[in-house]
Amino acid sequence: MTTVYAAIDRPTLLLDATRARRNIARMAAKAQRHQLRFRPHFKTHQSASIGAWFRTAGVQAITVSSVAMACYFAEHGWDDITIAFPVNVREIVAINALAARLRLHLLVENLAAVDLLATQLTAPVAIWIEIDAGYRRSGVAWDDRATLVALAQRVAACERMALQGLLTHDGGTYAARTHTAIADAYTTTVNRLNHARDWLAEHGFAGLEVSIGDTPACSVLDDFGRVNEMRPGNFVFYDWMQVEIGACTWDDVATVVACPVVSIHPERNDVILYGGAVHLSKESLRRADGSPNFGAVVLLEEDGWSAPLSDAWVRSLSQEHGIVHAGAAAFAALTSHTQIGGLLGIVPVHSCLTADLLKHYLTLEGERLTMAPIPSPMA
Amino acid sequence: MTTVYAAIDRPTLLLDATRARRNIARMAAKAQRHQLRFRPHFKTHQSASIGAWFRTAGVQAITVSSVAMACYFAEHGWDDITIAFPVNVREIVAINALAARLRLHLLVENLAAVDLLATQLTAPVAIWIEIDAGYRRSGVAWDDRATLVALAQRVAACERMALQGLLTHDGGTYAARTHTAIADAYTTTVNRLNHARDWLAEHGFAGLEVSIGDTPACSVLDDFGRVNEMRPGNFVFYDWMQVEIGACTWDDVATVVACPVVSIHPERNDVILYGGAVHLSKESLRRADGSPNFGAVVLLEEDGWSAPLSDAWVRSLSQEHGIVHAGAAAFAALTSHTQIGGLLGIVPVHSCLTADLLKHYLTLEGERLTMAPIPSPMA
Repeated sequence: MTTVYAAIDRPTLLLDATRARRNIARMAAKAQRHQLRFRPHFKTHQSASIGAWFRTAGVQAITVSSVAMACYFAEHGWDDITIAFPVNVREIVAINALAARLRLHLLVENLAAVDLLATQLTAPVAIWIEIDAGYRRSGVAWDDRATLVALAQRVAACERMALQGLLTHDGGTYAARTHTAIADAYTTTVNRLNHARDWLAEHGFAGLEVSIGDTPACSVLDDFGRVNEMRPGNFVFYDWMQVEIGACTWDDVATVVACPVVSIHPERNDVILYGGAVHLSKESLRRADGSPNFGAVVLLEEDGWSAPLSDAWVRSLSQEHGIVHAGAAAFAALTSHTQIGGLLGIVPVHSCLTADLLKHYLTLEGERLTMAPIPSPMA
Repeated sequence: MTTVYAAIDRPTLLLDATRARRNIARMAAKAQRHQLRFRPHFKTHQSASIGAWFRTAGVQAITVSSVAMACYFAEHGWDDITIAFPVNVREIVAINALAARLRLHLLVENLAAVDLLATQLTAPVAIWIEIDAGYRRSGVAWDDRATLVALAQRVAACERMALQGLLTHDGGTYAARTHTAIADAYTTTVNRLNHARDWLAEHGFAGLEVSIGDTPACSVLDDFGRVNEMRPGNFVFYDWMQVEIGACTWDDVATVVACPVVSIHPERNDVILYGGAVHLSKESLRRADGSPNFGAVVLLEEDGWSAPLSDAWVRSLSQEHGIVHAGAAAFAALTSHTQIGGLLGIVPVHSCLTADLLKHYLTLEGERLTMAPIPSPMA
């Protein structure tokens, strides 16, 4: 093992910087090839250091998921930021401070929030109408034509708001497991967004942009149709879920949690890790028998980590405990490589949540990278 | 709404200090009544300020789940600490530093870790053998007599280790839904622990203590049998899971996450909150139809919060979004009380994980309490 591993004493988020930078370069090149604005979502990494790698790849505009995250990246020199979350008017003070110093993009999806914004904004902002293209999270239903027009009109009536376009997050592609299914979900979404765009154009709002964002579609498609902007985030690291979806291969996955092995139970083929719900998150996939699956198991090697063991998984998580279960062959491979006092690597199901919990990265070269701090309430 | 609520701009962990202190006083009195050492688990709150409330209630010995947490509470004056997690020998430097300055209790459950400890400890520690009484997380199987004796012998052979007793966490009571089921699970566990204790006594290890820990049993039982110590943690706040189990009532639950309402969708009876997986955690209960349930919904009121709405729940969580769904009557109650720009309260499914994510408390009196910081790797 490298000396980097030797010094690890508790659950630690390892980052393969070569893979992450390759993921960034590939997506940036793809956006350029398709003449799309690349506005990557920084909620996945939440790190100014990793943000700098995007800048090197030519990125100038970014997406975040909270006002606090926008403040953090603004402090690190980013000046064109979309907060891709329905505007939270309770944060109007911070929103106004951001809008006064940079090009701030906000999402609206209801008239009440637009009215509150209209009376409270003190600086100009770009406005995107969030569209619900079928995912049923947030957004105006794509075919709710009356609300679309009403929203556009209210925005247009406020001199501090400039209507920029229509934006969606297509959560539907996360249910896909083949490229065809991803393409089908994407096509439906983009058609619906353009339906809404055309409707608004017919009602006096021409020239609106369309912004799409999910990592599965951005990763695998090569025809994006009539869109102007892409905002993927997870692709910088990928994770087990993206492998399951078919959005990436294991060789693209750039983060693994190194966990100390505190016990091995051969009588039940279980390995007990220091690495639990407060490190990995309780995001899970389902196994064929319906039981949950909280992470894939890799062996830490000199220059990174192995492919996942084909018959080993995190079967259970408590606050600090992770329990790896393995079939006979995988258990033998695992215990011949690692003993009590050693380390195992866990590929997160959902790297965004794992990174958010661990708040620090350790690169394979031994560099420590920090993330945005957790904001204090009412700070 | 109180002025405390008026200042909340993002997801904030509200703490009803009166309830938390009542929960502490009640459990302390119960331990005293049963002549049990009360060694509460501080992993739930992770806060020196809340720790001080336990001190007021007479608590002198505590439990934590990590070396980092032990260091934090040691810095805040606690000098009798059990790290209730199978010892992680990779943290031997910090363990030795703690052992040199306070009464440190470690858990062992395998010979490899004992051997590593024996060669690396530089200060005295108390040792507990962790017993697996059937939960199959960590611990020596209660009926693995050979390993029990071998462990006790190895510990006895090291002058820096003093064998103190047998300890378990009975995760089995979390599957219970009645007091009878909790009592049955508890009785089985305690019988198994005492079986192991008696076995060791017959083999030259007399006078060992037994330590039990789960909140359900400690909350509802009034006959603890042959045990010496109780280590419940969650009871300081309780949560929806504990209500489900029958360990507490809604009036005992001391924390709620105040979440800004960013959208209301009457066409599908959904309310969109700023409050997602990075605030609540993805811990879930199952609804009758098998769908997940990430939190209960309460209305924030002048002096705290309402009882949960009987037909409203958090149906879905993304990184920052929470989606509350409600039946017709609950939706009407909810939207007549709170509009876009207002706040809703969410009772966490598992308060330990929610507190760990939010890292700050806001009491109903407006006091802000902090928690242990997230440790940097290799710091």
